[in-house]
Amino acid sequence: MAAAVAVRTRRLESGRVGHVGPRRLIGPAVPPPPRAKRPRLEQLEKEKALELRKKHVAPSLGLHYAAVKPIKVAYGRGQYLYDEWDEPYLDCINNVTHVGHCHPKVVAAGVEQMSKLVHSPGTKMADSYTQQLLSTFPDNMGHVFYVTSGTEANDLALMIAETVTGHSEIIVIDGAYHGHSKPLVGLSSYKMKEKDDSGISPNPHAWIASNPDPFRGKYADPATAGTQYAGEVKEMIDSMEKEGKKLACYVCESFPGCAGQVKLPEGYFKAVFDHVHRAGGLCVIDEVQTGFGRGGEFFWIFQSQGVKPDIVTVGKPMGNGHPIAAVVTTKEIARDFLAKRPDLQNEYKGNLVSLAVAEAVLRVVEEEGLVAHARELGGYILSQLSLMANKHPCIGDVRGYGLFIGVELTEGAGSKAPNGKLAKDVVAKMLLRDKIMVMQDGLDNNVLKIKPPMCFTRANADSLLQSLDAVLTDLTQ
Amino acid sequence: MAAAVAVRTRRLESGRVGHVGPRRLIGPAVPPPPRAKRPRLEQLEKEKALELRKKHVAPSLGLHYAAVKPIKVAYGRGQYLYDEWDEPYLDCINNVTHVGHCHPKVVAAGVEQMSKLVHSPGTKMADSYTQQLLSTFPDNMGHVFYVTSGTEANDLALMIAETVTGHSEIIVIDGAYHGHSKPLVGLSSYKMKEKDDSGISPNPHAWIASNPDPFRGKYADPATAGTQYAGEVKEMIDSMEKEGKKLACYVCESFPGCAGQVKLPEGYFKAVFDHVHRAGGLCVIDEVQTGFGRGGEFFWIFQSQGVKPDIVTVGKPMGNGHPIAAVVTTKEIARDFLAKRPDLQNEYKGNLVSLAVAEAVLRVVEEEGLVAHARELGGYILSQLSLMANKHPCIGDVRGYGLFIGVELTEGAGSKAPNGKLAKDVVAKMLLRDKIMVMQDGLDNNVLKIKPPMCFTRANADSLLQSLDAVLTDLTQ
Repeated sequence: MAAAVAVRTRRLESGRVGHVGPRRLIGPAVPPPPRAKRPRLEQLEKEKALELRKKHVAPSLGLHYAAVKPIKVAYGRGQYLYDEWDEPYLDCINNVTHVGHCHPKVVAAGVEQMSKLVHSPGTKMADSYTQQLLSTFPDNMGHVFYVTSGTEANDLALMIAETVTGHSEIIVIDGAYHGHSKPLVGLSSYKMKEKDDSGISPNPHAWIASNPDPFRGKYADPATAGTQYAGEVKEMIDSMEKEGKKLACYVCESFPGCAGQVKLPEGYFKAVFDHVHRAGGLCVIDEVQTGFGRGGEFFWIFQSQGVKPDIVTVGKPMGNGHPIAAVVTTKEIARDFLAKRPDLQNEYKGNLVSLAVAEAVLRVVEEEGLVAHARELGGYILSQLSLMANKHPCIGDVRGYGLFIGVELTEGAGSKAPNGKLAKDVVAKMLLRDKIMVMQDGLDNNVLKIKPPMCFTRANADSLLQSLDAVLTDLTQ
Repeated sequence: MAAAVAVRTRRLESGRVGHVGPRRLIGPAVPPPPRAKRPRLEQLEKEKALELRKKHVAPSLGLHYAAVKPIKVAYGRGQYLYDEWDEPYLDCINNVTHVGHCHPKVVAAGVEQMSKLVHSPGTKMADSYTQQLLSTFPDNMGHVFYVTSGTEANDLALMIAETVTGHSEIIVIDGAYHGHSKPLVGLSSYKMKEKDDSGISPNPHAWIASNPDPFRGKYADPATAGTQYAGEVKEMIDSMEKEGKKLACYVCESFPGCAGQVKLPEGYFKAVFDHVHRAGGLCVIDEVQTGFGRGGEFFWIFQSQGVKPDIVTVGKPMGNGHPIAAVVTTKEIARDFLAKRPDLQNEYKGNLVSLAVAEAVLRVVEEEGLVAHARELGGYILSQLSLMANKHPCIGDVRGYGLFIGVELTEGAGSKAPNGKLAKDVVAKMLLRDKIMVMQDGLDNNVLKIKPPMCFTRANADSLLQSLDAVLTDLTQ
């Protein structure tokens, strides 16, 4: 302990970091990680690193929360991230590290495969994993293509839909985000909205339907919003057919994230799927952000709408941070695609280490009962947030599935006007004061996004709730 | 040894595999891997695995050499791959596992990072690696964007070129292969050539120049071929300008692989770059297959042409099989791109484990002097192959840079007619008889492709050469 105190004193004296924040909020005391040696200090001083980054690295590799307080995350364990001074931060945003940072069983699986074989054509197949993955899907699914990122997965999904249908048009929703390749950026109005004179035009085949948002969107009656929003998709199909064009596919996230954690109205997908299938198109659901049991009630959030998609893309949590993603589809579609594109037979391989890790992730989700845990803990957080909304009128809406939760901040007092400024301040204050990481998102940047590693505990949830309550009180009263 | 003999006997008795092949060809006896425990037998029997794969996995995940003899590669060490019976195969094709399968220093770097942190926004930056990587490039390069695959890298390179120039057209060469995303497949005539009624049209902005092949192409005089092939690019630019279109970029591999290991004629890039720059376009060089010192003489093969590209994409060997790739460009281009596309600021991150591995790979290349080794050993193999060409008239051409070598097989007796059938038979026979893995490639599938891990030894080279000699004798005399 003496050494730790000395470090902390020196740190405070040097003035390099600010207020330490109440440790009680982070739940039980967090010992240094037991399994790994303490990280050595980085070879480059942070200042020098910042200078070098400015000089050499694309700004895309920015420090986390650069605008608020640059944190150099040195290591992670479970639901905590640690800076180079071993200060813990409660991570409420890393849905990618699905079962927790550096889960021992996941690390072990990766290490074993790394020591055996990393890359070779053919080799140990994903057979058993593929079976396990398919068993989590509706029974129409029978084929898996492996790729290295959600972007590659969505790109392939589009290529499959166009090839199999022979059609060209694509319907997406406003605020969608499907990836960073050229065709996908052109489909992602979340990205295109921010574009200026870039010279890149949106995907010429994209048709953008309204964000089916029952809180802020144009249809708000829960009894009819689903069919009304789906009706727009139908109108679009009619319009394109009048122009002599045909629908290849409809693509949508099951719980649109960047669009603002939008909980789709009941019956929406069912009605959309009917329209799309009648037009000879395919229904592609993007579960890259949301899948693998995070939704609590269901393993895949699209299941909450009672539909069977033609293609589902999965990614981020699949490899707990290791690069792997997949396109899951029916046997018929896969067979048809590969028959028409034999040249692409050898393209879609999974990296062996990522596949071994993915298998471990699925095992851990099952062994640790994380789906039920997400349902129960997510339900608790949602109910507490709903109570908090009574106290804080700036909380306009609270919604989510399991451990994927959105808190919509408004001007309050009956107004639905989005309050992006407040969301930004909340994120900053929770980080600076309480070392709790949440983020803001949505078309107006006014939705707090909560999607922690699935090992998040009840004590963590209470820390998060207390911090949010206190920060909102400070900022609005 | 007793155990090994027992295994071999049982294997032969069971009749599961065929002829074992002369072990002497594989150089010194290969002990079981010293650092890792012996792999456990796969849970699924191979027959069951084959059945399951047929049922569930896209055929893209095929077994290696499925048509010749399905090998289930269980593990790899250095330049050897081992099947589930611990039989070694000499790997002459895995340029991706650049410094050798499971190089201890690479594994150690990956394991350390996996145990520390795999994914988090921000975090340990690629600062020192970025500096090291940039130091291998001409001095105009100053920025690195990290992505997860060569496909993502080329996709981003195109997006950068289009954004920065504001132009739309792209010139590529016939036989090119730049990746499997939709825009890239549409540029890769290597892929498009094999297309049938897929409904996917080539990239509408693609202009396909002749494969600048001085052996088989339309210009064969070494003194003029470079400017002649470059002249075609100039004509294309003139044509597009007449149509009111403008050139965004010219994209080419530095040693076109799928086009047949084409050694570009002298002065070709220099002349092309002049034409492209005069038209306001950017010069993009794809070093995904070839980079990181494999070329021997140079760290990047484009340097053999004495040019400074505007953008270079790198990948495969970068992570020794772990998913990582990058777009390297000038500070000015990177700044301009990000200013015009602020929405893409946060997209191009490297995976932390892959970055740690990439850093180790670069260190090993330097520590083990692998660039000089590639030059010397590659030079030896090329000279021996040239001698062999005197004996075997079916060897039409031998060419390469360092340890990236192509052997073009023809009908012989003065004919340049490509002999893809012979190439196929050679690959099969070298595998079945001598357990040596080479592959065939090229527009006519008649080029033997040799690109082993860089730890390939002189003894390995002699095994390869002896095997090729013997197999050619058997097949042609």
